[in-house]
Amino acid sequence: MQKISFVVAMEQEAASLIQRLDLKKIVPNPKYEKLQFVFYRGNYKDLDITITTPGRDPRYNVDSIGTEPAAVAAFATIMEFQPDLLINAGTAGSFAKHGASVGKVYLSDSAFYFHDHRIPIPGWEQFGKGAYPSLNVKNLAKKIGLETANVSSGNSLDYTERDLELMQQNGAILKEMEAGAIAWVAFVTKTPFFAIKSVTNLIDSNPDSPREFEKNFAIAAEQLTEKTLQVIDALCTTLK
Amino acid sequence: MQKISFVVAMEQEAASLIQRLDLKKIVPNPKYEKLQFVFYRGNYKDLDITITTPGRDPRYNVDSIGTEPAAVAAFATIMEFQPDLLINAGTAGSFAKHGASVGKVYLSDSAFYFHDHRIPIPGWEQFGKGAYPSLNVKNLAKKIGLETANVSSGNSLDYTERDLELMQQNGAILKEMEAGAIAWVAFVTKTPFFAIKSVTNLIDSNPDSPREFEKNFAIAAEQLTEKTLQVIDALCTTLK
Repeated sequence: MQKISFVVAMEQEAASLIQRLDLKKIVPNPKYEKLQFVFYRGNYKDLDITITTPGRDPRYNVDSIGTEPAAVAAFATIMEFQPDLLINAGTAGSFAKHGASVGKVYLSDSAFYFHDHRIPIPGWEQFGKGAYPSLNVKNLAKKIGLETANVSSGNSLDYTERDLELMQQNGAILKEMEAGAIAWVAFVTKTPFFAIKSVTNLIDSNPDSPREFEKNFAIAAEQLTEKTLQVIDALCTTLK
Repeated sequence: MQKISFVVAMEQEAASLIQRLDLKKIVPNPKYEKLQFVFYRGNYKDLDITITTPGRDPRYNVDSIGTEPAAVAAFATIMEFQPDLLINAGTAGSFAKHGASVGKVYLSDSAFYFHDHRIPIPGWEQFGKGAYPSLNVKNLAKKIGLETANVSSGNSLDYTERDLELMQQNGAILKEMEAGAIAWVAFVTKTPFFAIKSVTNLIDSNPDSPREFEKNFAIAAEQLTEKTLQVIDALCTTLK
């Protein structure tokens, strides 16, 4: 049976997907008993599916978003489940000028970048860009009527002009906080990886990303669940 | 026997320490055979010592610096070795106005921050600051004649004004690229943790951090090794 593992940063991004797939909370290894990471697992059609979230910060009771928890959650997922395919499902900011709208869902195009890893020393400069490969899911996207786009990650929900410049240089139009880190882990462990991202906010038409993110999160999360289920159904057919 | 594990981002920060402690390269678990992480282990006096580096990027042949590789290396270290104490040894930028000089070595004071995690939503705003605790090593520092300072991490070797503002708000005077991420892993796994950092560049007197970093790296790394050995010797006495 093919094994597909998801890493999802926020509980509320994962909740309805977990319910619809009827996954159950598990502890994959006693070492994780006292740790905050949350693992779900179940069979859906012909697939063994897991979802990992990095869990909540016990001090502020918020999801542990950002690249470091995502990287560790992805690494733990791969070490415990050795999935055939790793997917990051989540929300992202994007740009109206590139055709994005709130609730529009994309699959990753060719690569995952970072826009906040500025290391101006030869070798490290290129390393800092990321540019870790996405599995080619263009046919899959076409099949379910989605577009593909390059994703760029950084640890801030807001942005500086420099962040946007670097995104533009890299041809990335989805801005979020985890995919690049998970793509690095996938690259290091040679795990096929792609992302599915639903747009919460349009940076160019409503620059106040934090407010827009909060306002539009529910609709973006709902679209994320619907399209992720379509992706899984399509994968069932493809992977058979 | 007490177990002390180091996470060191760069091979050249770790090389002479590995030699002086006579550590040998090991693979802690067959799962790591094909991965880039490099583990060293050996006994030194009464201690079981390990050093983990995140290894080299195969595309550009540079050390995998930054928060994501550091977080995963720290997590792998803790899962494999369950150390009594985790230490991050490395280099950092600092400020002449706060009394720093090239090659000066500090131990971490009370906390580890991030200066590039701007998430202006209540709860996440505090989460993004980091502020993960350092083990109290003030007496240890005094014993070997070192000062302590708060450390702030971000994924860029250069800086923006906003980065420096956030560092100042948090009372951090050491700027580097890993400690905050390792401190998060230590926090999540309840592992006692502190850092030892040697200054490569003074942000306020020579703003071109990348050039200064390259120019002063060797002297900073040499001081890092000497002081880390003194820390280990002092820990031998203390932990007995």
